[in-house]
Amino acid sequence: MFIKTFGFMALVSAATLLTPLSQAASLSAAEQADLMQLKEITLNSDLSYQLIESLTTEVGNRMMGTPGDEKAVIWAQEKMKALGFDKVWTEEISSELWLRGQARAKIVAPYPQEMTILALGGSVGTPGDGITAQVAHFATLDELKAAKPGSLDGKIAFVSYRMERHIDGHGYGAAVGTRVVGASIAAEKGALALIMRSVGTDDNRTAHTGLMRYKAGVKQIPAAALSNPDADMLVNQLKRGKPVSFHLNMSSSREKQLVKSANVIGEITGSEKPDEVVVIGAHLDSWDVGTGALDDGLGIGMVLSAGHYIAKLPKRPKRSIRVILFAAEEIGLLGAKDYVKRHKNDMDKHMIGAEWDFGSGRIYRMTPGVGASALNGVRELAAYLAPLGVSLAPENNARAQSDMGLLSDAGMPSVNFSPDGLAYFDYHHTENDTLDKVNAEDLKQTTAVYTLFSYFAAQSAIDFRK
Amino acid sequence: MFIKTFGFMALVSAATLLTPLSQAASLSAAEQADLMQLKEITLNSDLSYQLIESLTTEVGNRMMGTPGDEKAVIWAQEKMKALGFDKVWTEEISSELWLRGQARAKIVAPYPQEMTILALGGSVGTPGDGITAQVAHFATLDELKAAKPGSLDGKIAFVSYRMERHIDGHGYGAAVGTRVVGASIAAEKGALALIMRSVGTDDNRTAHTGLMRYKAGVKQIPAAALSNPDADMLVNQLKRGKPVSFHLNMSSSREKQLVKSANVIGEITGSEKPDEVVVIGAHLDSWDVGTGALDDGLGIGMVLSAGHYIAKLPKRPKRSIRVILFAAEEIGLLGAKDYVKRHKNDMDKHMIGAEWDFGSGRIYRMTPGVGASALNGVRELAAYLAPLGVSLAPENNARAQSDMGLLSDAGMPSVNFSPDGLAYFDYHHTENDTLDKVNAEDLKQTTAVYTLFSYFAAQSAIDFRK
Repeated sequence: MFIKTFGFMALVSAATLLTPLSQAASLSAAEQADLMQLKEITLNSDLSYQLIESLTTEVGNRMMGTPGDEKAVIWAQEKMKALGFDKVWTEEISSELWLRGQARAKIVAPYPQEMTILALGGSVGTPGDGITAQVAHFATLDELKAAKPGSLDGKIAFVSYRMERHIDGHGYGAAVGTRVVGASIAAEKGALALIMRSVGTDDNRTAHTGLMRYKAGVKQIPAAALSNPDADMLVNQLKRGKPVSFHLNMSSSREKQLVKSANVIGEITGSEKPDEVVVIGAHLDSWDVGTGALDDGLGIGMVLSAGHYIAKLPKRPKRSIRVILFAAEEIGLLGAKDYVKRHKNDMDKHMIGAEWDFGSGRIYRMTPGVGASALNGVRELAAYLAPLGVSLAPENNARAQSDMGLLSDAGMPSVNFSPDGLAYFDYHHTENDTLDKVNAEDLKQTTAVYTLFSYFAAQSAIDFRK
Repeated sequence: MFIKTFGFMALVSAATLLTPLSQAASLSAAEQADLMQLKEITLNSDLSYQLIESLTTEVGNRMMGTPGDEKAVIWAQEKMKALGFDKVWTEEISSELWLRGQARAKIVAPYPQEMTILALGGSVGTPGDGITAQVAHFATLDELKAAKPGSLDGKIAFVSYRMERHIDGHGYGAAVGTRVVGASIAAEKGALALIMRSVGTDDNRTAHTGLMRYKAGVKQIPAAALSNPDADMLVNQLKRGKPVSFHLNMSSSREKQLVKSANVIGEITGSEKPDEVVVIGAHLDSWDVGTGALDDGLGIGMVLSAGHYIAKLPKRPKRSIRVILFAAEEIGLLGAKDYVKRHKNDMDKHMIGAEWDFGSGRIYRMTPGVGASALNGVRELAAYLAPLGVSLAPENNARAQSDMGLLSDAGMPSVNFSPDGLAYFDYHHTENDTLDKVNAEDLKQTTAVYTLFSYFAAQSAIDFRK
């Protein structure tokens, strides 16, 4: 499906490049000059990289409930102030605490081997000294779903499905189901625990964590992900046809204790229509492994830089630009849920929004999700972005990414920028998500795109609403 | 230097390809047919891969003194017998035991961060609850050497030099010095411990272990390697100019207890000159992390396959082919040292030898180290190997790799096969050295080369001695 779309998109992109800007351009000549200047500046600035370097080095990982998250909330406010935002504030949230603890696993028989695993986020731990049980192997989540009730009594369920690598990351959708719902499905069949191949495209001895959920009324069993090479090892032992005995010991726990965090919000106040806001966002939290350089340090660097360089223009754009660094995305979009609730009465003033929470390479496509009357304006924006290698998708159905998707659901017009995500799931939710994975040159392009989008949407008078 | 050599080699290789086989060919037409048949069989066989799969899955890692090493010695004998070797025996060695124990480290200040480390092989542990001390940073081993005596009193020395990636692995030589001698040099200046950037070319959160040695009469201090991203983090914190405090806790220990292992040797007995032996080897042990799939599972698979397919020919070659799987290479070439001592009186019957203990890609070059009168014979062999993409180096100075180098030093003629080593040091001595890193197609080529070499050297009457 995606391959066909790409073919069509290439044509659309070429057409866009050949279309002269409308004579009724939304930006004046002076405004167009400002936009071109913003492009030059952001394409030559390493500010986004320096922000990510600061965040990963001085804060590190930052899961809600950890000291890193508290530091990140302070870090973000200080940076916004230093970068020239007109208003900086926080909107507090609270949630129960999850503790990762330690996780150890090994194949006990037929051939003892140490296993590299990570607990899934939200998982309970194992009782006592852990669980040792026979492994029941399923190639896919559907196979696990098809297992007979009681057939997994006293066993550890193992799903070995491997995520596929695609530029737009669509392999994630096919793989992540096991992580999210697998434990309760396995528990319903009698399993003592769920283990799964990590949702990741790499071959590193590095497991991928990520959120799981328990179904109400079903026994909560421990759930963990094996690194890809460890999953291969387990599959190879199972292939020999002998019973495979596996030991799992996890001390993770779901605590009743409430912990706090906050959305950190900075605004460049509009000069003519300050109550109309263009929002760009990323999430401030990360998993508690790695330093969250890609997920979502990249987005944080980009949206802060966009705000900074627009704030440095001689004059504020007409509309306000609001940069939202969402809290607790990883553990269930908690910051975004709070934001939508808190801002339900002014959601109609959110003129358009975009998030960055996927990919690590250059942006190659823009997909709008706006009112039909705004499509000419979107094409005008696309013409400014085309020289950066960004084509305009033929669809007009974008729901914003990640946190911002909840604002789309609440009626906000949206735009999605699609970056090269080929390498993203090599590092996603692992120890390996560190600064060295950030490509400083690609980051200049993505920063330029978010900056130009923000300026254009705030300065033009286009009504993006449906 | 290497680039120049490559250019020259390409010419030599082309010349070799154009040279018709001498009319006084060392192999008869029937023998040439056998050789061509061996090429076809090995290029289409996955036996080497299956052997590595078996070793890594059923044995796993196998450092001398661990249960894995004991299992490996049994595994190797059983495989040699099953593969049709005429004689299979072991030559026992013993050594003191080193225990890895646990290793934990973190940056304490200015910005607390967990560190991924591995103890260097042979290192002592830290006293009590570990060491917390200020980091003294050196960009290279030479900078550490230049530090004034006493200047590191109470400090942890850190060498951040990064290994370079090259096809022939020559970046290793420039980087490994810190690992081998760095601890004693740091101790002489007063340091409490040595930490270093891993000797590796990857960007994984996976540290590289490897042998270190203490200088006699110098205080033995703990030594550990940080993964590349962790070394980057430490460098980035140091760059800020504030004192950096580091905590290191390692329970590794050097025990007086003696442990045993053995060289495992299999022979295809020669039909005409059984006391003249052609030796091919690899090392059976590995480090105690990963499963030793590349280091040296690859070599084990190749030399066992070579023996097997030559044993399946209707007739034994004239000379014996001896496959040596050396014990305890990683902890100081202990098996090779024993072999040279034990075989000093028949070393002159070792007609020629080759080891595989580097690289993971296809072989592109052969370098001989033989008597001048044997060079025509080497060119003849090169003509058989040229269609496999192997060129003949202009030099005649090869010292065999790794273990086999000690046999070269004892007078054995040698040949070195140079494989693509670009990716090798991404995985070398890490948890990440696992089966998925083996390229099954490249392995067919390398197996074919070792098989053809062995058959040619054993069947031809060429005297390779100097």
